[in-house]
Amino acid sequence: MKPARRDVFGRPQGGWRLRFYTVIFESDTPAGLLFDKLLIVAILASVAVVLADSVGTLHAKYQAQFHALEWGFTLLFTVEYVARLSCVRHPLRYATSFFGIVDLLSILPTYVAVLFPEAQALIDVRILRLLRMFRVLKLTAYVWEYQAMGRALVASRRKILVFLSAVMMIVVIMGTVMYVVEGPENGFTSIPTAIYWAITTMTTVGFGDITPKTDIGRLVASFMMLVGWGTLAVPTGIVTAEMTARRMLDTPASRACGACGAAGHLPEAAYCLHCGAALGSAVAPREEAAP
Amino acid sequence: MKPARRDVFGRPQGGWRLRFYTVIFESDTPAGLLFDKLLIVAILASVAVVLADSVGTLHAKYQAQFHALEWGFTLLFTVEYVARLSCVRHPLRYATSFFGIVDLLSILPTYVAVLFPEAQALIDVRILRLLRMFRVLKLTAYVWEYQAMGRALVASRRKILVFLSAVMMIVVIMGTVMYVVEGPENGFTSIPTAIYWAITTMTTVGFGDITPKTDIGRLVASFMMLVGWGTLAVPTGIVTAEMTARRMLDTPASRACGACGAAGHLPEAAYCLHCGAALGSAVAPREEAAP
Amino acid sequence: MKPARRDVFGRPQGGWRLRFYTVIFESDTPAGLLFDKLLIVAILASVAVVLADSVGTLHAKYQAQFHALEWGFTLLFTVEYVARLSCVRHPLRYATSFFGIVDLLSILPTYVAVLFPEAQALIDVRILRLLRMFRVLKLTAYVWEYQAMGRALVASRRKILVFLSAVMMIVVIMGTVMYVVEGPENGFTSIPTAIYWAITTMTTVGFGDITPKTDIGRLVASFMMLVGWGTLAVPTGIVTAEMTARRMLDTPASRACGACGAAGHLPEAAYCLHCGAALGSAVAPREEAAP
Amino acid sequence: MKPARRDVFGRPQGGWRLRFYTVIFESDTPAGLLFDKLLIVAILASVAVVLADSVGTLHAKYQAQFHALEWGFTLLFTVEYVARLSCVRHPLRYATSFFGIVDLLSILPTYVAVLFPEAQALIDVRILRLLRMFRVLKLTAYVWEYQAMGRALVASRRKILVFLSAVMMIVVIMGTVMYVVEGPENGFTSIPTAIYWAITTMTTVGFGDITPKTDIGRLVASFMMLVGWGTLAVPTGIVTAEMTARRMLDTPASRACGACGAAGHLPEAAYCLHCGAALGSAVAPREEAAP
Repeated sequence: MKPARRDVFGRPQGGWRLRFYTVIFESDTPAGLLFDKLLIVAILASVAVVLADSVGTLHAKYQAQFHALEWGFTLLFTVEYVARLSCVRHPLRYATSFFGIVDLLSILPTYVAVLFPEAQALIDVRILRLLRMFRVLKLTAYVWEYQAMGRALVASRRKILVFLSAVMMIVVIMGTVMYVVEGPENGFTSIPTAIYWAITTMTTVGFGDITPKTDIGRLVASFMMLVGWGTLAVPTGIVTAEMTARRMLDTPASRACGACGAAGHLPEAAYCLHCGAALGSAVAPREEAAP
Repeated sequence: MKPARRDVFGRPQGGWRLRFYTVIFESDTPAGLLFDKLLIVAILASVAVVLADSVGTLHAKYQAQFHALEWGFTLLFTVEYVARLSCVRHPLRYATSFFGIVDLLSILPTYVAVLFPEAQALIDVRILRLLRMFRVLKLTAYVWEYQAMGRALVASRRKILVFLSAVMMIVVIMGTVMYVVEGPENGFTSIPTAIYWAITTMTTVGFGDITPKTDIGRLVASFMMLVGWGTLAVPTGIVTAEMTARRMLDTPASRACGACGAAGHLPEAAYCLHCGAALGSAVAPREEAAP
Repeated sequence: MKPARRDVFGRPQGGWRLRFYTVIFESDTPAGLLFDKLLIVAILASVAVVLADSVGTLHAKYQAQFHALEWGFTLLFTVEYVARLSCVRHPLRYATSFFGIVDLLSILPTYVAVLFPEAQALIDVRILRLLRMFRVLKLTAYVWEYQAMGRALVASRRKILVFLSAVMMIVVIMGTVMYVVEGPENGFTSIPTAIYWAITTMTTVGFGDITPKTDIGRLVASFMMLVGWGTLAVPTGIVTAEMTARRMLDTPASRACGACGAAGHLPEAAYCLHCGAALGSAVAPREEAAP
Repeated sequence: MKPARRDVFGRPQGGWRLRFYTVIFESDTPAGLLFDKLLIVAILASVAVVLADSVGTLHAKYQAQFHALEWGFTLLFTVEYVARLSCVRHPLRYATSFFGIVDLLSILPTYVAVLFPEAQALIDVRILRLLRMFRVLKLTAYVWEYQAMGRALVASRRKILVFLSAVMMIVVIMGTVMYVVEGPENGFTSIPTAIYWAITTMTTVGFGDITPKTDIGRLVASFMMLVGWGTLAVPTGIVTAEMTARRMLDTPASRACGACGAAGHLPEAAYCLHCGAALGSAVAPREEAAP
């Protein structure tokens, strides 16, 4: 369900500002749609430039070209940012909105990089423009889905926090146990390190940079691995068992009443639950439904 | 539910072409079924030859035999391909269909390998003949299931793309953060490398070829691991909680008939399924149902 | 639901054979229950002996004691096996049943080990006696659950096979691609080795004994990792979204009809779906239900 | 659903003991709430001190300060413990309750550490005070959720035990097979070690400290990896297929009212929820619902 479009930043009344607004913020017109597509291409291209520039061999070969491209993109995005601010009626709302901050963060790094070269790695934050891309592509369904995902996360925040707090307690306690059992000579150099190991184990990532060497340590590790994997496997198994049981009740011998047509009777039902009329002979429940 | 068989490529009217068609494309007759089984054996055997030929020790011992077998299979599959093309009424449709392209790819490599030995590894693509196998084995249920799986994926493509785009954004941003925090001296030699590490971490694979060494890096890594594992664990836990809650609501409200004592009535049942007497109002639910 | 006890092997009529049968095969009597508990202790102890005997340091210290214990257990289980065979009416049925074969495998190794010392590792197969333990402990619920799990697996065998065949096709193709892209110099020494790597990656195990070194290889690896993890994450997310949506429909504004008491009306319903009477004013659906 | 507060330890009648009780055990008053918040800060701070003290570099720099802080926290928690014991009517019940034991364990280590310096690592067990924190923060919702989680685990204990016993049987058998196939020269030095490897593999953790080197070993490993991952993937896929099928059945059978055209009626609806007119028979289901 797409929510109705909300006029947050102040759609201008008319003039050149309205023409700019329809192209930049809206995608109803061919110009607006073209603008969006060009912007996506520009964003992906600028991200690719940052990615490529971080690879030593490519940086050695194409440093000048990457630098030029980066300045080109920055100027492009600066012009776009200024255009956005100037064509809405409430520019401050846009500048302080999520997308406004993202736009600003997208161009600041290049200007900062002129003065502080080591901050060049921050330029990739422009990937956040991808969010804008979904919006401008009129794939409001996408944006609606991100908003929906975000709202779902917020709505479940208490369950998530309780769950994570339980996980944190387990990894802190088990990590310290491993710190005591294995000790620094086996890689568990401090409790924070041991907790880091406990997280890699419970989340089943298992880097292997730190591993238990003692028998007790491996026993504790086995327990943690079974807890971490079991947290996924046991509920999945229970849910599947429930569903299979329910399916075997729902489908095979569910009969309809001859008198009133009501369906969904249990196999052993003899009278219609809706009108009381007698049902045909109860079918002996088959043990397995066809998969 | 098996879909009705569709005549896509043009079933011939009669003559030798019809006889070939019934054997090759259909499995209703003993000859057709035998053809299918022999074809499966030939496909599995040819794949095994490629597998074995790639093992250094086996290649050293049996190179000549593998080579001869490979030519034998190629000739066999070439004959089969030509037969398929010649007995349908629309050979071009077959040649451009998925299975037609797979058949062509299955025999081309050997001919190409005569000229370009380094392309010999492509021969395994004949495993795609396995798909054909399901079809010709009249296990149309299997083919129906692959088609069903494919349609399910296509139907959910928007959700999958939105989900994957969210994952990509996280790994790109977190990867670059690790690139900045850990740096090339700890293995994070470029942003693409760091993104590769972020993917191994978030998908809980955790190769361990690259691992964070700094405390901040391990903190970021812990966050990513909890997100990657939590994406599986949190929903599973929520769904299980819902199901358990629903089950505890459903079963206790199952009422017993006042007249005959039969239990297990659905909440909306108005008449006893056993004796037909009218049921009274629902009984108060018990707090926990037996697991 | 416990299935009724089935008399498979032939319950003897009377005499010493019946007394033996009630102790060994049944757990209704104190003697039968004691027999079962002693047997479990014996089985666990014998398994512990095998485990301990495999540890170099313990073997060096206690070899003689372990050897003596092992013979003790073998004699005990031999006596039990002979007793079982002799007290049923159809000993051959027992000998060829699952538990009969397990019992035989449990004692043969020790006799074989006298002649072939390298087969001593097979003794642990006695853990299969644990299955018998569940049975004799009258925890038929457990045995019922293993049987239920087994039947569930058999009932779903087609889905499992289709799923696994799809996984096998992916790992075979992707493994060979990595074999071509990375090559033996990066650890992918043969196609079977590459397929083994592909399985460790897709199942998110990620040993790290073989890892991609080239950029294209890491790209293919990233794809495989996302497929392997996504196969778990995407459906989980979809199911959770469905459940959450359904819960938000079911719970908040579900109203009961004042006239007939029927519940479960959608928020925007104006007339009772059961009797047609007018419902109270439709509540505007709240956007988020309390978690 | 919050359970009503239970007076377990004996709420005092009056006097200074009642005043202490309301501050320490209850959070209805500003003093009680402030007490709780100060206690949480103290607990988190004391845990942070233990964490920091375990890091070699920090210990070298701040050992004296950490020691002083630790004594401060111990004295604080000792005072709190004594206060709790003295203001309830049944101090022994509190001392033997979960939280009472946790409180005692939280202060004992420091006193013990004076006499036994190597036990200093046990001080982190004060994280268990975090549980108390949830309680005293009047976030009884949290405590209710932990209790609910605990009760859910206890209620499902049979299923969990059956499941885990099946997993243990697989890892013990497969571990011993690998011990025989790979042998001590490849890292599988004993059966317990091999079982530890089997657990890391089946839980998809995959540390990589021990890996199979032989072809048969890798084949067995591949089987175990597919079982471990498949236990998560196969049920998830089946459940998703069920839900998708059900959704495709549920939504299309939603009927439209002949009189007013309103859609979205439940299958069992007899009257239009919008206009009250009688509904006709169900419309034929469409093949795919929009995702």
